[in-house]
Amino acid sequence: MRATDVIMKKRGSILNPKGEKLSREEIAFLIENYVKGEIPDYQVSAWLMAVYFNGMTFEETADLTDIMLHSGDVIDLSDMKGPFVDKHSTGGVGDKISLPLAPIVASCGVKVPMMSGRALGHTGGTLDKLESIEGYNVQLESDVFKKYITECGFAMTGQTKKVVPADRLLYALRDVTGTVESIPLITASILSKKIAEGSEALVFDVKYGSGAFMKNEQEAIKLADSLVKTTQAMGRKASALITNMNTPLGFKTGNFLEIEETLDVLEGKGPEDVTELTYQLGSLMLINGGKASTKNEGIELCKNAVQSGKAMELFLKNVDMQGGNSKKLLSERNVRRSSHVRKLKAEKDGFIKIDAYKCGLAGIHLGVGRNKTDEKVFADSGFIQQKIEGDFVKKGDVIMEVFGKDEDCFDSAMPILSDSISYSESEITKKDLILKEIL
Amino acid sequence: MRATDVIMKKRGSILNPKGEKLSREEIAFLIENYVKGEIPDYQVSAWLMAVYFNGMTFEETADLTDIMLHSGDVIDLSDMKGPFVDKHSTGGVGDKISLPLAPIVASCGVKVPMMSGRALGHTGGTLDKLESIEGYNVQLESDVFKKYITECGFAMTGQTKKVVPADRLLYALRDVTGTVESIPLITASILSKKIAEGSEALVFDVKYGSGAFMKNEQEAIKLADSLVKTTQAMGRKASALITNMNTPLGFKTGNFLEIEETLDVLEGKGPEDVTELTYQLGSLMLINGGKASTKNEGIELCKNAVQSGKAMELFLKNVDMQGGNSKKLLSERNVRRSSHVRKLKAEKDGFIKIDAYKCGLAGIHLGVGRNKTDEKVFADSGFIQQKIEGDFVKKGDVIMEVFGKDEDCFDSAMPILSDSISYSESEITKKDLILKEIL
Repeated sequence: MRATDVIMKKRGSILNPKGEKLSREEIAFLIENYVKGEIPDYQVSAWLMAVYFNGMTFEETADLTDIMLHSGDVIDLSDMKGPFVDKHSTGGVGDKISLPLAPIVASCGVKVPMMSGRALGHTGGTLDKLESIEGYNVQLESDVFKKYITECGFAMTGQTKKVVPADRLLYALRDVTGTVESIPLITASILSKKIAEGSEALVFDVKYGSGAFMKNEQEAIKLADSLVKTTQAMGRKASALITNMNTPLGFKTGNFLEIEETLDVLEGKGPEDVTELTYQLGSLMLINGGKASTKNEGIELCKNAVQSGKAMELFLKNVDMQGGNSKKLLSERNVRRSSHVRKLKAEKDGFIKIDAYKCGLAGIHLGVGRNKTDEKVFADSGFIQQKIEGDFVKKGDVIMEVFGKDEDCFDSAMPILSDSISYSESEITKKDLILKEIL
Repeated sequence: MRATDVIMKKRGSILNPKGEKLSREEIAFLIENYVKGEIPDYQVSAWLMAVYFNGMTFEETADLTDIMLHSGDVIDLSDMKGPFVDKHSTGGVGDKISLPLAPIVASCGVKVPMMSGRALGHTGGTLDKLESIEGYNVQLESDVFKKYITECGFAMTGQTKKVVPADRLLYALRDVTGTVESIPLITASILSKKIAEGSEALVFDVKYGSGAFMKNEQEAIKLADSLVKTTQAMGRKASALITNMNTPLGFKTGNFLEIEETLDVLEGKGPEDVTELTYQLGSLMLINGGKASTKNEGIELCKNAVQSGKAMELFLKNVDMQGGNSKKLLSERNVRRSSHVRKLKAEKDGFIKIDAYKCGLAGIHLGVGRNKTDEKVFADSGFIQQKIEGDFVKKGDVIMEVFGKDEDCFDSAMPILSDSISYSESEITKKDLILKEIL
């Protein structure tokens, strides 16, 4: 087999411009030899571009995913009692859903082996939020991760370098060769990591809108469909929600601020959108884990987990287990704040929109996020919204309380935040939080 | 400017899937930095694949060509009296047209600075044919090349490594990344070399059929159109013929054998197809060089150059000038033969077709051509057709006299040659030699 022939098969020809389906052997030949360093970058980047244009079938994507995930360590949960279900979000601004979701679902008897990522660009990262809890350790060895799941029903960890090395190599190459925006490649990248962590079933929160990776609704639906169908082609249960990410989720965006909002949700006092999305995703996880048979039944179970205090209890237990101090956390709640503060005030009267992307960009300046993977983030940076999209404001009203990493950061952050607000004389029709469900 | 952005601009997006036209600056940034080693292979190969899918306008192709040709030495003929017109053929089997064409056109007052290539794969190479003349030197320094053009009206040379280094780098990369078959990339590769040799006007012989680079008629027309329009976009005259390469041209295929057939044509006794194509291409060169105003006038001038003996005289003068010995050449004509000979006989009665591609492949085994650029070819290998496509043969008739580099080579060559012949009970409608003309 020659790499050039595999590239050309996917690329197609004049008579067959959409190319041909690659066999598992052909995909394995390319990926395995690339990871070994025996096929050069320039052949793989040409193949990635051919995939960008000609796509892959769900079966090809499943093969690519399976080959990628076996390039590294795979967590084996087969010696433990399940069911194991995880959620994946394509990322957004103020998206802290994983944090209340894991303990809620775990309270209902579905185990959650959650492997999360860090903030990058305008989107936040679950690991950075967890690390804002003093002492919280997100670098768990496989056996510790498994032990915590057994004892607490869920555990939160980051990926080690040994998990899916093929994805790290491919992603770095895609990033510099204009081949990121390909549905099958995005699917394989997400799924290879999620399946390597041992989940038997997956629920996807595919976001669309300015603050999402997918700006376009139709593309988000395509990605959700690809994620669900590819996971199913790999013999696992899957479902997805396509959700609105045009404005930040909840009232609080930041690292420690989102831990606080998690506590609000677990007390049943969270913002409507965060609570709704948590229950909806939780219900799908319970259905996929065999603990609920209908959407409503799942939602009721999630509500009960909150109302009984069981979910909060599990969350705090996990905090202590993973190196944090739950008493200290509770004492810091709504008290611990950056000393660098500004207020963003309404510039005129009107119904407001708040753009998620711009808020996310401002977050990078404030210290919530980062532009490059090696940059430091700040636990107490962020903003609290006094007003949300659709609210009416009068000139001078405080829209946001803004917390920075230092005094200087406001020079760049405040104009961006200010620019994130748009005013309208007439009432704003808010888009539904959930656009579509794929089961 | 970032290479990734240039790649993505050509690649396009969901809303703009055909990408955008690149500016000259963007193309120059990519190519110039690639030649300097400052942009890596993997970005260029991704860009090449994006060009494969999304194409380039004639203006973009002209910019790419101009940037490529200025990556190396450009022959400056501005201190000499023109007009300078060259022909380029996309290559075939038995295609010796350049050899009689250059002296015929030079006889009519159009100077021909001809830079040719070598045999590769199933196609022959003008330089290998010329080198079958003992002593003939195809490695001319620029000043010698110019001197010969002045004295003889034409000169024949190979490319030095200093001519269009960008093409050598890009071609090597395209070859291993499945990005060869792109009309704008093929156009820029051909044109950058042709224009670097100093021609003011060009005539293209774009071949289609089994023995051609373009198997498909429509693709050949597209390439011809791209070559003509891109040359015109660069401010030069251009025209093209799209010609049939389903069966070998002429009776003789080989290196020295094609020199012999050149002498036949220059004596007015050449095969009908070779003579016809030589005159047709010659006429277009004379028109582009301002020496004829109509196709017929050009053809008449070419015929006169042959009938007067002027063209033969110039050819032999060039042989002596470039290090050969014209007397020795004439004495060897129809006499110098390989001692390794076979006869290919008809296996049954019928009207025959002779497949150019299979003849070209057999030629590699015989020693006419080569698979890799560093392989040696043999001057006296080849075949003489006693019968051509469309002829009726009786079982046992000699179709070809075959000459090999040694005795062993026939084991592999003869079955391929035998397979190149197909027999039909009914008469064969021969396709026209010239499919289309682009002016």
